[in-house]
Amino acid sequence: MISSTTNSKVKHLVALIHKPKARAEAQCFVAEGTRMFCEAPTDWMKEVYVSESFLRRCERNENAEIRCILNRYPYEVLTDTVFQKVSDTQTPQGVLCVLSMPQYKLTECVEKWTDDIKKAPLLVLLEDLQDPGNLGTILRTGEGAGVDGVIMTKQTADIFNPKVIRATMGSIYRIPFFIVDSLTETIVFLKKKGVAVYAAHLDNSVAYDEPDYTQPTAFLIGNEGSGLQRETAKCATQYIKIPMAGQVESLNAAMATTILVYEAARQKRKNI
Amino acid sequence: MISSTTNSKVKHLVALIHKPKARAEAQCFVAEGTRMFCEAPTDWMKEVYVSESFLRRCERNENAEIRCILNRYPYEVLTDTVFQKVSDTQTPQGVLCVLSMPQYKLTECVEKWTDDIKKAPLLVLLEDLQDPGNLGTILRTGEGAGVDGVIMTKQTADIFNPKVIRATMGSIYRIPFFIVDSLTETIVFLKKKGVAVYAAHLDNSVAYDEPDYTQPTAFLIGNEGSGLQRETAKCATQYIKIPMAGQVESLNAAMATTILVYEAARQKRKNI
Repeated sequence: MISSTTNSKVKHLVALIHKPKARAEAQCFVAEGTRMFCEAPTDWMKEVYVSESFLRRCERNENAEIRCILNRYPYEVLTDTVFQKVSDTQTPQGVLCVLSMPQYKLTECVEKWTDDIKKAPLLVLLEDLQDPGNLGTILRTGEGAGVDGVIMTKQTADIFNPKVIRATMGSIYRIPFFIVDSLTETIVFLKKKGVAVYAAHLDNSVAYDEPDYTQPTAFLIGNEGSGLQRETAKCATQYIKIPMAGQVESLNAAMATTILVYEAARQKRKNI
Repeated sequence: MISSTTNSKVKHLVALIHKPKARAEAQCFVAEGTRMFCEAPTDWMKEVYVSESFLRRCERNENAEIRCILNRYPYEVLTDTVFQKVSDTQTPQGVLCVLSMPQYKLTECVEKWTDDIKKAPLLVLLEDLQDPGNLGTILRTGEGAGVDGVIMTKQTADIFNPKVIRATMGSIYRIPFFIVDSLTETIVFLKKKGVAVYAAHLDNSVAYDEPDYTQPTAFLIGNEGSGLQRETAKCATQYIKIPMAGQVESLNAAMATTILVYEAARQKRKNI
């Protein structure tokens, strides 16, 4: 049992939780909580840490399912005090794991699309989104709406930030995501593949429910404060807008994305 | 100029920002930032506080519009240090105001609906929502979708919490909201008025885009963790569900509300 925060493993854990650089170097990230632990893909799992009292609860069979998963992996026990210090949450559930970062390549992923996806892939492109909660929620809602991939710029909030991980509610394990150097090049690539890229934009736009999203579709979403950069927006196939009543000037980026991906899902459902 | 945090006005401000009880006693709340200040209804305005450096920027005419509004109201100047201590944000913009709480009564509001609203009011009912960001965002997106009122239980996050106020982006000034003792009684009242109440629910539900929302409509949304209480859900006219792909079990409450109110807005637009 580890009872000191000066323990090298604990120090490394803390670094992985708080420092993007440490995550990049180790090519690992941390997921916390029973749900995130239980749903983690087996081949991503590197290390497991549990708190003393969590383990006791498991041994009393209060967490039979988790106990069963714990039996699959070696794990380290931390005292409750150490676990609390390491944890990114105020009331830790008592389990966290270090996971390998998945390595998705957009070009490879596109080649491997099943016939079903090929017919009408649904993608989300994010330019410089800053809010971790927004990014995480977009993955979660995206999975719900049947999104096949989320593409983001390097300037977007770090997807391996614990706040993002938590907000995905496990969708990070299931939705392929791509961090790209150039969003404009990616748009050009997607358009060549027959994907229509719709930019959420206020100028010269059609209502968001006009285009046909039963065809290959990507939604391009800009930064919370400044929206899409002109050069990026220019590459889009079409501008779309979400009509707004009252004095609302814009919607939260995650809300706008939700409306768009669920409109695509609705159209696809109606089309069957 | 106030230069001490022990000043009684400053103490009162801090209490209004942090203590629901102080807000309830004074029947006032605090809104911070230039946008929230500029959009605040004149007859809600009680006190205005600016930081020293904010005032200097105004005097140099860098904030001509705000200066113009400041001229309408008496204001107190706080040193930057005091303002920073009072502020609820990390990088305060330098202006905040104390506002009277609006007093909306649901029965009165319903009586006063214009013919336009009467034809097809759109309402949101929230049961015990806990996340301030969710509540604020629901008001913002609600205004965008043309929602005519947001009704919530007393156990819902405090709408006058600065986090909620900020997340509304000013919609709090424009959407009537109602904090009710009994949601079931409210549902019964609304149904008597001809409003169909749709509960976001997983059991025996139709897809959310099936019902006709061009008729009087209310959406009933449950708590983030536990969903709707059985007794409340039972009162609904119909259960609706948002189809979810992948392994997503539920959507964030604000996301679900967004999808529903925008579907209603879409139907209304198509119907014109």
